Amino acid sequence: MPRVIAEHLRLPPGPVDLAAIPTGATPGFDGGKSDGKEALTELGDELSDLQERLFAEGRSGGHRSLLLVLQGMDTSGKGGVVRHTVALVDPQGIEVTAFGRPTEEELAHDFLWRVRNALPAPGRIGVFDRSHYEDVLVAKVRELVDADEVERRYDAINELEAELVAGGTPVLKCFLHISPDEQRERLLKRLDRPEKHWKFDPVDIDDRQLWPEFRDAYETALERTNTEVAPWYVVPGDKKWYRNLAVGLLLRDALAHLAPTWPPAEIDVEAQRQRLLDEQPVQ
Amino acid sequence: MPRVIAEHLRLPPGPVDLAAIPTGATPGFDGGKSDGKEALTELGDELSDLQERLFAEGRSGGHRSLLLVLQGMDTSGKGGVVRHTVALVDPQGIEVTAFGRPTEEELAHDFLWRVRNALPAPGRIGVFDRSHYEDVLVAKVRELVDADEVERRYDAINELEAELVAGGTPVLKCFLHISPDEQRERLLKRLDRPEKHWKFDPVDIDDRQLWPEFRDAYETALERTNTEVAPWYVVPGDKKWYRNLAVGLLLRDALAHLAPTWPPAEIDVEAQRQRLLDEQPVQ
Repeated sequence: MPRVIAEHLRLPPGPVDLAAIPTGATPGFDGGKSDGKEALTELGDELSDLQERLFAEGRSGGHRSLLLVLQGMDTSGKGGVVRHTVALVDPQGIEVTAFGRPTEEELAHDFLWRVRNALPAPGRIGVFDRSHYEDVLVAKVRELVDADEVERRYDAINELEAELVAGGTPVLKCFLHISPDEQRERLLKRLDRPEKHWKFDPVDIDDRQLWPEFRDAYETALERTNTEVAPWYVVPGDKKWYRNLAVGLLLRDALAHLAPTWPPAEIDVEAQRQRLLDEQPVQ
Repeated sequence: MPRVIAEHLRLPPGPVDLAAIPTGATPGFDGGKSDGKEALTELGDELSDLQERLFAEGRSGGHRSLLLVLQGMDTSGKGGVVRHTVALVDPQGIEVTAFGRPTEEELAHDFLWRVRNALPAPGRIGVFDRSHYEDVLVAKVRELVDADEVERRYDAINELEAELVAGGTPVLKCFLHISPDEQRERLLKRLDRPEKHWKFDPVDIDDRQLWPEFRDAYETALERTNTEVAPWYVVPGDKKWYRNLAVGLLLRDALAHLAPTWPPAEIDVEAQRQRLLDEQPVQ
């Protein structure tokens, strides 16, 4: 099981040039598709063990949790990561939130209001399918707010994330990086499959003509929020199996870094065992 | 894949005698453990497909959802069903709520307040690990409320469930039925495993001496709330593999009965395809 994939994916500080980062590569992993799928399956036990420890800690008075933020262009595979990677652990320990277009109520509050409402409970893994980053991406490209407000938001995001990390909730931020050609293939495939038509929004095609603008917005957002405490990981996403595995490995690393331990027994184990062995018959 | 398991597990109307229902049987399923595990794995695709249709419906303006209620004595496997059966579908479509001892805030409201707050969103499968039934079980056995209040609660539960069903949210209620001997074995095993000690509460051993009282409370609760619109299923739970499979099959049946269909395309598929084929180069 590869142990060093994070080093390959962690975005270095400074200006970001997404066009220079390959979308079809498999950094840190030598094998092919079937090896990658096998590695993900094998990862399941390790992820489950770590998740269960974190959950146990949360149920025993601990306050730590973890937040996985998934961002990327349409069809980049945010939902696929949830279905294939996050699904490897106990659903009881997972809280998935998909952020859509803000409601009237959400718009009446600061942009982080709905995010704060969706933060994971102690011991849980929160998963954001889109997130507060939409508020400096689509909001910027479509000029829903002015430039000053976008600037303010970068800072507000960094403050929120620093606060979360300091409070025991690491923030694992993954940008799922696909090429425009791969997106086109995926949109065409959706059109081929009637059971995917409900997901199809013609705006997704319009947005392709804004690809450079969205890429610019991503580059700035990634640079401005690529902090020491909550860095970005750029996950090549053209190969779905690699994307699923890479996020799984990053999640494993983040959980392992938390190093949740089984809460100590607050009981006299021997005495409790003896009680069961000595008890009056129950029927 | 067995299709008729529900008939074997559905509790008939009238007085309930749990001692007369075997806990180690595998009604409706001829195979053994390995067959059962294989059948559960195979069920995954069918469950996922149904769940995704329901989810799609919910995202496309539909209001239906499904509520799975898991009840049973300590160690009966409520968490195991979540981990092994519910985990077969996309976590994005699942909302698990574990109901513990009510908080001060919850106690300040009617007992159904916290339940209403936890009902599944449109398109989701809500899973209750314990539920409003605790309020006519532990509340009755420990005399936390008087007999009149318990009576009122049976009716309130039936009204809530009827309202849910009428509103498009079927309520699938499973009682996981284990023997006191099986519980003793499971508690002893927890004591053998340090990673399970955090789950161990000495009260669980005290409660074993109240087994007849809890069984009585269950029998009355099951009888009083075994309605036509939201019947109870008694799932023999001594064999974990059977329990997981049986709940999976009941869930499949409940989803299939809803018969969620893929939302119709609101787009001209051919025109959208042509747009993608004709578009200006994107890079």
